[in-house]
Amino acid sequence: MTIFTAGILIIGDEILSGRTQDTNANFIAKQLTSSGIKLEEIKVIKDQTKIIVESVRSFSQKYSYVFTTGGIGPTHDDITSESIAAAFDKEYEINREAFNILEKYYPDGEFNKSRQRMAKMPADVHLIYNPLTAAPGFVLNNVYVLPGVPKIMEVMFINVLKNLKKGKPKKITTINTNLYESKIASFLKDTQEKYKECSIGSYPYFNFLSKTGGVNISVSSWTMSSLDDVEKEIIEMIKLNGGNYSIV
Amino acid sequence: MTIFTAGILIIGDEILSGRTQDTNANFIAKQLTSSGIKLEEIKVIKDQTKIIVESVRSFSQKYSYVFTTGGIGPTHDDITSESIAAAFDKEYEINREAFNILEKYYPDGEFNKSRQRMAKMPADVHLIYNPLTAAPGFVLNNVYVLPGVPKIMEVMFINVLKNLKKGKPKKITTINTNLYESKIASFLKDTQEKYKECSIGSYPYFNFLSKTGGVNISVSSWTMSSLDDVEKEIIEMIKLNGGNYSIV
Repeated sequence: MTIFTAGILIIGDEILSGRTQDTNANFIAKQLTSSGIKLEEIKVIKDQTKIIVESVRSFSQKYSYVFTTGGIGPTHDDITSESIAAAFDKEYEINREAFNILEKYYPDGEFNKSRQRMAKMPADVHLIYNPLTAAPGFVLNNVYVLPGVPKIMEVMFINVLKNLKKGKPKKITTINTNLYESKIASFLKDTQEKYKECSIGSYPYFNFLSKTGGVNISVSSWTMSSLDDVEKEIIEMIKLNGGNYSIV
Repeated sequence: MTIFTAGILIIGDEILSGRTQDTNANFIAKQLTSSGIKLEEIKVIKDQTKIIVESVRSFSQKYSYVFTTGGIGPTHDDITSESIAAAFDKEYEINREAFNILEKYYPDGEFNKSRQRMAKMPADVHLIYNPLTAAPGFVLNNVYVLPGVPKIMEVMFINVLKNLKKGKPKKITTINTNLYESKIASFLKDTQEKYKECSIGSYPYFNFLSKTGGVNISVSSWTMSSLDDVEKEIIEMIKLNGGNYSIV
């Protein structure tokens, strides 16, 4: 079975300064997981050519798909497109199709020099259309270049995803219990050893006001045909230990 | 002037699967920025020993400080501590001080084998105390190992931060305007070229319902003594172009 993998590059000083809470990685991650594409790594990097070039090259070699967000607007700090051209030794030039789309979108006289910058791309790309604000992203080799504004990125990503080769979606079930993590830890370890084809994660939470807490036990697998047996064993164990459970 | 740098490693399959939206990186990023520590990179990686070892080694060499979150609980998928021991060729063993803290915290008979696992750490660490749920983090060389649960991580991080050597805080001002990004792009480019010691970022936003939008212009510098001149020039430009502005 082919496993398709992915890496995400979030490009932007504003994430590293803490000014902006990134939500693009999480949006893409969810979509990939349910599409059978395994997200291996997320990296947040500065708006700096050298770092973008190195990261794009390395991700492009390691993963089936690379998604970048940010840095394709009209201003001087938008350097993603030219950096990606450099990463793949391509010319950085006006893309005629992008130019025409943008020219048509803006009222007469409004398609100024800064806006024309959004039509500059590496040679030999395919466009990713933007139904909201016209300015397209692009794909070059296995690298999908998307904008940073979440609403726009999301619409464009969904369109990209439709045409990607996908794997079998990851099977996931989550069991919530009021038992504490340490109470069930050794059982979960044994269960993990018994079912090596799935991955059992244990995510505790606490409510500091009510001083209550519990665990979400997540069972997931890219290869098993059913998680029913694992789920059943975990529920039995919770009952045996006098805990409550629910499937989340 | 010494510039202190930092890297963050978010360790956890649940972030990569999209199950959990990470907020720890943003919390740490904000605190670092206002403490004069320059966050250079954030990386989200899987719960897998080899990847943790490589990432910790590389970050530890590149940055003044490394912060990791996640993977130090009592269950089988918590492998951060032993991976960090491996990264620095240290024994992975019971830390007496951590053991005593946890033993005291739990009622008689409740300090079971799984919980004792939380006292296993690399040799030669210093503890990072946990005022909420007892289980400590630790620091080894320049690597600060913190839990993944945000409320706990945040309290522990604030305590860690108090004792770090810091730089001069980054100066930041943000000017909001209703002008579109492409209208001001060429001015911002010139201003950026004039004031090379600051970094001018331009962050557009759109309201798709009201079809209005604008830009937040962020000016920041690690070295300039004042941003007043840059701010004044940008405001003048906004007025000249008939836009509104406010300092955010």
